[in-house]
Amino acid sequence: MQVVIVADLGGTLLRTGLVTPARVLVHQSTQRVGDRRGNAAIEALLRDALREASERAQAQALEPVGAGLAVPGLVDPERGVIRYSANLDLRELAVAAIVREVIPLPVVVENDVRAAAWGEWRWGAGRGTRHMGYLSAGTGIAAAVISGGRLYHGATSAAGEIGHAPVVRDGDPCRCGQRGCLETMAGGWGIVRRAGQLVVRPARSASGPAEEGPLTTEAVFEAAAVGDPAAAAIIREAGEFLGQAAVAAVRLWDPERLVLGGGLFFDGSPLTDAVRRAVAGSVFYGETPPPVHLAEFGGNSGLMGAACLVLAAG
Amino acid sequence: MQVVIVADLGGTLLRTGLVTPARVLVHQSTQRVGDRRGNAAIEALLRDALREASERAQAQALEPVGAGLAVPGLVDPERGVIRYSANLDLRELAVAAIVREVIPLPVVVENDVRAAAWGEWRWGAGRGTRHMGYLSAGTGIAAAVISGGRLYHGATSAAGEIGHAPVVRDGDPCRCGQRGCLETMAGGWGIVRRAGQLVVRPARSASGPAEEGPLTTEAVFEAAAVGDPAAAAIIREAGEFLGQAAVAAVRLWDPERLVLGGGLFFDGSPLTDAVRRAVAGSVFYGETPPPVHLAEFGGNSGLMGAACLVLAAG
Repeated sequence: MQVVIVADLGGTLLRTGLVTPARVLVHQSTQRVGDRRGNAAIEALLRDALREASERAQAQALEPVGAGLAVPGLVDPERGVIRYSANLDLRELAVAAIVREVIPLPVVVENDVRAAAWGEWRWGAGRGTRHMGYLSAGTGIAAAVISGGRLYHGATSAAGEIGHAPVVRDGDPCRCGQRGCLETMAGGWGIVRRAGQLVVRPARSASGPAEEGPLTTEAVFEAAAVGDPAAAAIIREAGEFLGQAAVAAVRLWDPERLVLGGGLFFDGSPLTDAVRRAVAGSVFYGETPPPVHLAEFGGNSGLMGAACLVLAAG
Repeated sequence: MQVVIVADLGGTLLRTGLVTPARVLVHQSTQRVGDRRGNAAIEALLRDALREASERAQAQALEPVGAGLAVPGLVDPERGVIRYSANLDLRELAVAAIVREVIPLPVVVENDVRAAAWGEWRWGAGRGTRHMGYLSAGTGIAAAVISGGRLYHGATSAAGEIGHAPVVRDGDPCRCGQRGCLETMAGGWGIVRRAGQLVVRPARSASGPAEEGPLTTEAVFEAAAVGDPAAAAIIREAGEFLGQAAVAAVRLWDPERLVLGGGLFFDGSPLTDAVRRAVAGSVFYGETPPPVHLAEFGGNSGLMGAACLVLAAG
């Protein structure tokens, strides 16, 4: 059986997997990136993980036909290079070449959000459309669009970086160097940062005193859900800004459907609800807004998309 | 000599012209739309104007090769229909068929902002690029993008309608039916409306008492320039919202260059300056933002674009 060897490199996790042309993820493995940063450390991490996935394929008598990588930051898919990733402190990392040394097969490299969008479009929540918008909110925020059946890249393959559009004048510093970007108000890291500034500590209703530990978006969601007014305000504002961004993307891209992916958009998330409400309410001149769907592959959208890109290219 | 018969239908003016393949506007005529509204009135207006332009071509021994129309609102270029125009109160007006009765030649119909963008891309301020963004602010606000040498339409040919993305929660009613749209804060009609609410009346420094008359954007610009604080605040806010919209479009579309068109963007306009500043300042992860150019054809971008679309299609 043929498989594509895939990897999805994030700021926190590196996922690898084997995906068949029949859209089955026959193997998946996840490891923490930990505090690895910089070209050399990430190159070693990737190399080891891909070698392991390749060996796994061999052990199971699977036939690899190519490798697909979903990677963060500013990516040049033609050269197979990560031009820049702030999270992982990467500059001009030639990932395609690295992968080809381990797996001497066709290699496709794509930005993680764009890969996820492609996977959802071909195999998931975007099936059957010609024009699909994708908005991802996790630690960071970015978007992607498939238009007329083509993945839209823009002039520098940086299309969709809505997380770095300013929404608050003279707002908090963003990790990109600007101030008041959407991510500072509505990205996972921005939500946690704002909650930390307000010293929100979720009460643990169950046993004993509240545990101390690094604040997470889950904890802020929880605190908001149980009525903490500061946490509720942060989540409400994040939802409003995400809703505005989703509507701006819908107006500019005019997709047939909008798909929401990334860790902050799950069923029942107040942010999912906020975006759904904003898009459903954005009826201009009587035009029906596009329906909003949740990504079907959840945390595996990037892996599935990477596989899909390899199979489409082959 | 060959010419394309072109028309640019706006809420205020109907421009017609004759354009040669060598990009020369050999004849141009402008008339006021006045209070004509509705399918029948606009159909008659268009028919007369095109007949006149056609006769003019004949009188000058020019050979028409086709007709191009730039029209407002939601347009279906494939069917040659204006689906909806709020300004002109049009619904399902089959303009291509109307034109063909007068001018039995190939007819191209396109949304006015998209036509203008195409004209600037092929012949004007966007020459030499593969990816060009276009932001138009006049009475209304809309945008367009050429990506990889193709005019981007989206699923319903409504891509670029950023004027109807909400920017103010529970803001002023927009003519599209929503509240707080970008147009209510930064479109010509929104600026005039806001100024009217604040009873801004520009002082005429020259002769005698201030004239009364309908307020115009020019008057609000003037009042702001001479230090009227209310007018200055309106223009400053309009500039900020336009700057934010321009940056959002740049992030989502990733164009190589951004071109500004429409009556509010002229050399020395405070809104031009505001957008230039916002885009130039939107340096994320050290990426150089695209340069911002003013449209070269000014009020004739739509005519030139319509001609260009006919010649490209032919």
